[in-house]
Amino acid sequence: MEKWDSNEGTSAFHMPEWMIQFADQKQEFNKRPTKIGRRSLSRSISQSSTDSYSSAASYTDSSDDETSPRDKQQKNSKGSSDFCVKNIKQAEFGRREIEIAEQEMPALMALRKRAQGEKPLAGAKIVGCTHITAQTAVLMETLGALGAQCRWAACNIYSTLNEVAAALAESGFPVFAWKGESEDDFWWCIDRCVNVEGWQPNMILDDGGDLTHWIYKKYPNMFKKIKGIVEESVTGVHRLYQLSKAGKLCVPAMNVNDSVTKQKFDNLYCCRESILDGLKRTTDMMFGGKQVVVCGYGEVGKGCCAALKAMGSIVYVTEIDPICALQACMDGFRLVKLNEVIRQVDIVITCTGNKNVVTREHLDRMKNGCIVCNMGHSNTEIDVASLRTPELTWERVRSQVDHVIWPDGKRIVLLAEGRLLNLSCSTVPTFVLSITATTQALALIELYNAPEGRYKQDVYLLPKKMDEYVASLHLPTFDAHLTELTDEQAKYLGLNKNGPFKPNYYRY
Amino acid sequence: MEKWDSNEGTSAFHMPEWMIQFADQKQEFNKRPTKIGRRSLSRSISQSSTDSYSSAASYTDSSDDETSPRDKQQKNSKGSSDFCVKNIKQAEFGRREIEIAEQEMPALMALRKRAQGEKPLAGAKIVGCTHITAQTAVLMETLGALGAQCRWAACNIYSTLNEVAAALAESGFPVFAWKGESEDDFWWCIDRCVNVEGWQPNMILDDGGDLTHWIYKKYPNMFKKIKGIVEESVTGVHRLYQLSKAGKLCVPAMNVNDSVTKQKFDNLYCCRESILDGLKRTTDMMFGGKQVVVCGYGEVGKGCCAALKAMGSIVYVTEIDPICALQACMDGFRLVKLNEVIRQVDIVITCTGNKNVVTREHLDRMKNGCIVCNMGHSNTEIDVASLRTPELTWERVRSQVDHVIWPDGKRIVLLAEGRLLNLSCSTVPTFVLSITATTQALALIELYNAPEGRYKQDVYLLPKKMDEYVASLHLPTFDAHLTELTDEQAKYLGLNKNGPFKPNYYRY
Amino acid sequence: MEKWDSNEGTSAFHMPEWMIQFADQKQEFNKRPTKIGRRSLSRSISQSSTDSYSSAASYTDSSDDETSPRDKQQKNSKGSSDFCVKNIKQAEFGRREIEIAEQEMPALMALRKRAQGEKPLAGAKIVGCTHITAQTAVLMETLGALGAQCRWAACNIYSTLNEVAAALAESGFPVFAWKGESEDDFWWCIDRCVNVEGWQPNMILDDGGDLTHWIYKKYPNMFKKIKGIVEESVTGVHRLYQLSKAGKLCVPAMNVNDSVTKQKFDNLYCCRESILDGLKRTTDMMFGGKQVVVCGYGEVGKGCCAALKAMGSIVYVTEIDPICALQACMDGFRLVKLNEVIRQVDIVITCTGNKNVVTREHLDRMKNGCIVCNMGHSNTEIDVASLRTPELTWERVRSQVDHVIWPDGKRIVLLAEGRLLNLSCSTVPTFVLSITATTQALALIELYNAPEGRYKQDVYLLPKKMDEYVASLHLPTFDAHLTELTDEQAKYLGLNKNGPFKPNYYRY
Amino acid sequence: MEKWDSNEGTSAFHMPEWMIQFADQKQEFNKRPTKIGRRSLSRSISQSSTDSYSSAASYTDSSDDETSPRDKQQKNSKGSSDFCVKNIKQAEFGRREIEIAEQEMPALMALRKRAQGEKPLAGAKIVGCTHITAQTAVLMETLGALGAQCRWAACNIYSTLNEVAAALAESGFPVFAWKGESEDDFWWCIDRCVNVEGWQPNMILDDGGDLTHWIYKKYPNMFKKIKGIVEESVTGVHRLYQLSKAGKLCVPAMNVNDSVTKQKFDNLYCCRESILDGLKRTTDMMFGGKQVVVCGYGEVGKGCCAALKAMGSIVYVTEIDPICALQACMDGFRLVKLNEVIRQVDIVITCTGNKNVVTREHLDRMKNGCIVCNMGHSNTEIDVASLRTPELTWERVRSQVDHVIWPDGKRIVLLAEGRLLNLSCSTVPTFVLSITATTQALALIELYNAPEGRYKQDVYLLPKKMDEYVASLHLPTFDAHLTELTDEQAKYLGLNKNGPFKPNYYRY
Repeated sequence: MEKWDSNEGTSAFHMPEWMIQFADQKQEFNKRPTKIGRRSLSRSISQSSTDSYSSAASYTDSSDDETSPRDKQQKNSKGSSDFCVKNIKQAEFGRREIEIAEQEMPALMALRKRAQGEKPLAGAKIVGCTHITAQTAVLMETLGALGAQCRWAACNIYSTLNEVAAALAESGFPVFAWKGESEDDFWWCIDRCVNVEGWQPNMILDDGGDLTHWIYKKYPNMFKKIKGIVEESVTGVHRLYQLSKAGKLCVPAMNVNDSVTKQKFDNLYCCRESILDGLKRTTDMMFGGKQVVVCGYGEVGKGCCAALKAMGSIVYVTEIDPICALQACMDGFRLVKLNEVIRQVDIVITCTGNKNVVTREHLDRMKNGCIVCNMGHSNTEIDVASLRTPELTWERVRSQVDHVIWPDGKRIVLLAEGRLLNLSCSTVPTFVLSITATTQALALIELYNAPEGRYKQDVYLLPKKMDEYVASLHLPTFDAHLTELTDEQAKYLGLNKNGPFKPNYYRY
Repeated sequence: MEKWDSNEGTSAFHMPEWMIQFADQKQEFNKRPTKIGRRSLSRSISQSSTDSYSSAASYTDSSDDETSPRDKQQKNSKGSSDFCVKNIKQAEFGRREIEIAEQEMPALMALRKRAQGEKPLAGAKIVGCTHITAQTAVLMETLGALGAQCRWAACNIYSTLNEVAAALAESGFPVFAWKGESEDDFWWCIDRCVNVEGWQPNMILDDGGDLTHWIYKKYPNMFKKIKGIVEESVTGVHRLYQLSKAGKLCVPAMNVNDSVTKQKFDNLYCCRESILDGLKRTTDMMFGGKQVVVCGYGEVGKGCCAALKAMGSIVYVTEIDPICALQACMDGFRLVKLNEVIRQVDIVITCTGNKNVVTREHLDRMKNGCIVCNMGHSNTEIDVASLRTPELTWERVRSQVDHVIWPDGKRIVLLAEGRLLNLSCSTVPTFVLSITATTQALALIELYNAPEGRYKQDVYLLPKKMDEYVASLHLPTFDAHLTELTDEQAKYLGLNKNGPFKPNYYRY
Repeated sequence: MEKWDSNEGTSAFHMPEWMIQFADQKQEFNKRPTKIGRRSLSRSISQSSTDSYSSAASYTDSSDDETSPRDKQQKNSKGSSDFCVKNIKQAEFGRREIEIAEQEMPALMALRKRAQGEKPLAGAKIVGCTHITAQTAVLMETLGALGAQCRWAACNIYSTLNEVAAALAESGFPVFAWKGESEDDFWWCIDRCVNVEGWQPNMILDDGGDLTHWIYKKYPNMFKKIKGIVEESVTGVHRLYQLSKAGKLCVPAMNVNDSVTKQKFDNLYCCRESILDGLKRTTDMMFGGKQVVVCGYGEVGKGCCAALKAMGSIVYVTEIDPICALQACMDGFRLVKLNEVIRQVDIVITCTGNKNVVTREHLDRMKNGCIVCNMGHSNTEIDVASLRTPELTWERVRSQVDHVIWPDGKRIVLLAEGRLLNLSCSTVPTFVLSITATTQALALIELYNAPEGRYKQDVYLLPKKMDEYVASLHLPTFDAHLTELTDEQAKYLGLNKNGPFKPNYYRY
Repeated sequence: MEKWDSNEGTSAFHMPEWMIQFADQKQEFNKRPTKIGRRSLSRSISQSSTDSYSSAASYTDSSDDETSPRDKQQKNSKGSSDFCVKNIKQAEFGRREIEIAEQEMPALMALRKRAQGEKPLAGAKIVGCTHITAQTAVLMETLGALGAQCRWAACNIYSTLNEVAAALAESGFPVFAWKGESEDDFWWCIDRCVNVEGWQPNMILDDGGDLTHWIYKKYPNMFKKIKGIVEESVTGVHRLYQLSKAGKLCVPAMNVNDSVTKQKFDNLYCCRESILDGLKRTTDMMFGGKQVVVCGYGEVGKGCCAALKAMGSIVYVTEIDPICALQACMDGFRLVKLNEVIRQVDIVITCTGNKNVVTREHLDRMKNGCIVCNMGHSNTEIDVASLRTPELTWERVRSQVDHVIWPDGKRIVLLAEGRLLNLSCSTVPTFVLSITATTQALALIELYNAPEGRYKQDVYLLPKKMDEYVASLHLPTFDAHLTELTDEQAKYLGLNKNGPFKPNYYRY
């Protein structure tokens, strides 16, 4: 029965096949996946940050020497060699990147300031495995300022910004990461973070679950000292729920992926802008008057629809869920089946998290010049494989843009080969990354300082009050002024003046 | 800790003071409240339906005779006198109202059609206490078509449409209700529904909790045969949670107030339109270029802000919750404290559910001609009492419009004396009432047919699948075509092809 | 050839048939038209002001005595009897109406203030023929403050507010008007304004052209002393262009109808709000998800489409002009022929100025419950006459709302019998009337003070600089702060610092 | 007086200083301007097309040989050497670019089809001077298909796509243009188009006026045979009005720059999209919640404001013209002076056509990180020169992005050094270029076929009917269906069924 029941966090969670398959496949993570496989292991919204504003720098080191960092002898200016990066000499350049990112991550900077008196992470030994970007660096240095010791590896073999890694190593962080790691390098780096003489982690910050699994496999005893895991990604969170369900989770874990603030920014607000950006950068098309079908009216679909409608497109929506479907109607979109409009639309956008939403049959019926792209969770939404047949010609017309040409000359414009448009063809604003990083920092503080017994060996959502705190730290960016409850009002509403302000089931 | 915990449905529910006070006061419900008190007992979105489209008719019977219906002898055309209405002769007129309402409540009509084969409510004996309007009549006759026997009283002493009550009585429904009941009449009518020779209810449909409480007080033994309670109002639901918490709830109860579909329509979609309607009907003002402050950015506030922004107003928002505040920022509204803008705005709208959000101090600082109104939960949001002082002159310039005049000549335009603008000065579309009524019908079916043990003596939310079903029944109104999952897709997503499609915590 | 050529103001003007026919018919204006005819003579945006905010008062005098004002002996408190109104005793009530209107017409009040030093209309003897409402009273009293003497009649036999007329008479204005004049009364009143011992007008302010024509017919010699005509209505302007073309215009005339500011407010801004208001007040419908077709994408159509789209309706547009059609596309509306969508839409709105845009054939194909209304220029857009056939039943369900019922039970909801929805079923905000009145006042000042030779016997548009001045007088309402050009910038742009700021052909 | 007067096309035109200065400077066009000067000579919306979708190709030839095309001997496959391009061997590549452009220029393709029967340009000898891009090639080949002979030069020394020029040369068009011409080359190319044995132009298609002036200076006698000039740019049009005013214009000229359709697309529709695109590509910023001030509320400002508001920005507007200011208010923007908000905004956008709108004083007061950019007519709107002072540091952080750093560390983000953002940092959609090219083609047809006497030695706007025709040719792109007037309706409206549908002064 559908009340908010006790094990909802775990058992009531949908167990989609793609997650199960994926998790199974991950059990064999000692085997060496192909690079493609590797890449798909990590959900990585920040992956695109390799392309981001402050990182023009990184384009310059492509001509670097080819020696593996593992074979190099490097020391930072203080004489330490407890790190492994591409080139320690790039540190200064990376430092500038970090400084620019600091300007746009006021919440973490505010945390640092508050930490000048007390050190909520004093004694914390955090091992981390995330994308290594300027924004991550701001997070790591904030954790340091809060009292923590950190060791860090990359969660993705491609996404490391070498200059940033160098800057972190230079300022004393044991970082093990570079752009273009092999699979073997990948696990070697993780191991170097964990397997250290005289240092044992008591906190884990993970993005994708690889670090967590490595410790499970290789150093299960470490969990005795570990106070908790903070996990950011969909995939990693799912693995944790599985462990919990199987009774194998041996420390508390915090699912920061599903916190309200992070969700809204990752999906609704970010996609509302990146759909336009991604389409423009790839095709220079005009939105006005174009007919668009958006498959799926969840947060991502809502963002895409709102943006395109505002730009003068005519938007149709497909949905399987009648509640979301009714929302689409009330928001002014015609709800159709894909077949009804497939011949007439200029753009097809998938936002479902489902597979084979756009099939070969649909692709066959599209009109000449139709643009097809994916904003959803996985790269299976468009059945791209079905287009790899002899009678169709593929023509790469631009980076991330393919023309698929039918025998009669019809061209379909496929973006990013069906992978996520917003990650491939636009960038994630630092502000969105700031929200994620702040959420991670607060989750670490909470787990590290929680009194005995508050958290059991289970997966938890970020306490709503902390979620609210993340939001409040970002309000000054907008010069936004929050109203405070009077004592009388707080009593009337039965609320604490400092929150939380809403019941857990509130929908925002 | 903030996971979706087991007793969230009950204990985690905020226990605001105004509810507690109210509930206390209700313990003495045998005493005779004043009429004002009476009116505030019932949350009643449909109350405004006295003013609605199809009911122009009701204005005509104001010159009716003054004999109390309790003193009249009336029979319907089949000879039955098991009812008590104002005037059975108005039945034909009421029937036309019902027929018009039927046209706009396709979901209930669809339920009737499906019920031609099976009768899911066969054997059900439902006692109901709701507003008695054409829309309610469509609900009652649908319940009848589904196999139920019904007896009905009004949940509000003013809201009954006498013609509709007559029409129901004429077609055989034992209805006990008229417009302008006394308090004594009110309880008498409820008692006549319940206290019958040879008939005992096994289901309760309540709106406000008065019927439920009456049975608790007077006929507690009846609960032995009662399979469940369906409650629609905020107040009634709160009482049920209190009973549950106190261990005194002796049957399962369904909280239909918080179902997703109903909530979205009662708040976001309905208010998006009614804020414009209410302001226009009362003041004929122009929205373009006006500066407006909206206090509170929940669903109601979101609806008001979106509508006014779309009409060219410049909208400021106040909030206490940082998450909602951040949403306001991302939606393009400046987040301010009320004091910052109070001197410059043309309109002040409260949507908080809080008290004294607009104080006398604010009112003193507003500019000449400023319009003040309330779209929130209670009539305490604006401190209207503070305006009842000798130095201020009140001038009624129109129905629902007062000018409050300061000694220096400044006029504040107060709408509906601070009561709910959308209920007082606009109407609720039948489509919104259709969603509520369908939700009620499905909740009755579910509780009545649930296998032993599915529901305990607790308060439940409508199963998500049923919530989805309500939505799906309303899609044909928009000629909306839902997509069905393929088997392969359902397996991939780990979903049943017929839903539910989302986890409980999904935020929509 | 299509340059901005010399006689564009007159000869290049389209000469639509309905204007020609109408004008012809008007040649016989001595004959007594039917009341219906009379009403349609005057374009009257302010006609609806009988229903407006400040005029609740007027509802009370319906039970007045039936003596014709022409047969009454009335004197104002100063002993004058040079007026003819319904009841001079209502003056005080009317005065309050005028005072409220003054608060919302800041531009005229500002003109009065500036006039304290100089009197730009000193010596002006203005004869006027307009709707007589509180807003007109503010205009008349402003003209008085500027130095003019005025005599006034009503341009419409129904639209006079008797209290306001009484208030004007009481304060010394010779006003000849009451609600419910006969045709004979109508011309008698006009004659009483013009045909006076020892007073001869030197300026005409007209709305519809009846006053102007009366003088042409009866007192052509008066034109020797008349310095100019200010005309507000489409019809009146057209008559003037005809006179000009025929070489019969013997004084300069100012077409204030086509000034930019007035046009935008009468059409785009006003209709954007009144379409929603008119639909809600008549039908209480919900806009979200409704399918609407708007016929015509001029300023009125643009306003309607924008408003409905913002409220979540799905809007289709029909157009004959490819440029407007392309605009509709770029604004996100599907451009269709009416036949393509007539079966599926929930609402049909005409905004064309054309005739028979919605034909009986269309009406036959609409779905049950479809709402049909007209926002365009004339009442011929919907072929209402075609619905007056024996097989169709008309049912008046509300004021301004008819159900037209087909033999199979299908009901079409026809609003205002096809007349203008915004005038019949909503109100015109005082702010819009303020813009019109200010434009009229400035046009009178300009014509009265223009040096010999600036204006010939032709029809002129309001000088752009004056149009800009009208706008600037209304900016303080929005607390809007205009930027001034520096000397350097003015030189760079080749502009005078005080305007005009745009070439004549600028499109805004 | 402000009626649509006879010489409005010429004399009433504002004569801004920057145009006069510029024109003066142009009198000496034989002298060799600097490259910067050269570039600013031509208004060039299509200039940015070097960056456009279909032109990825052009990036490849940067390593080309350095021999001047003037020194090369090249022949096309048919043996002709009457052309001068960078490298005839690139023709095939250029042909593909042209084919792709053809797909997006359906209006020109439709013209070709209609020309299969008659050749409206048979006998026309057109000399052209425009940007040479794939879109221009589609225009030229269309003119050829319509019967014309063409010779072509580039109007800008940088904007030629070499492959396209090669493809045109290969298919027989005498083209004289390459990317990176010297000033001397520039005039040499023009001369080679004009000064040919046995061929004399009878039509001119110009973009910027350089070709026209060359003929005036060098071959004034040619005008005897020339039937007309079609000019696209603001600058070129202004020169023509000057010639006309001075009585020196010796053939009819068509100002296609000011046609309605072209204006709306160049300004409103194009900028509505390119403001977002330009900001994203340069800064990856998030729009939601940002405070923006837009200087100027003409078409460009309206487009920018609408887009940013839709993306959740809070937008302020500055204006000098009270009419546009009132529009801003009614559209929901606070109208301020720049000084009032300069300290708080995150973005400053100029759209005025004025100079020094953003001064050093403003820049000094902006907050850290404020983004400053220009969408207006000229690069003088932001006083960039004032930032070239010793105490400020410039840091190029990306292509088109400079940080200007104050002594206290404050950084202002200046885009495109104050030049036009939409041309520098985004691309012009082919659809917009299609509208321009179609307008040019129709203007040529009109001038070439006009009966003797229709056009005098003056500057004309495109006949409205042709403007409408351009629009109608682009409707099929949107699958838009125009409604046709019935005979009865046309008569009623006094219109020809084929248009024109509006009077000249209609504002759209």
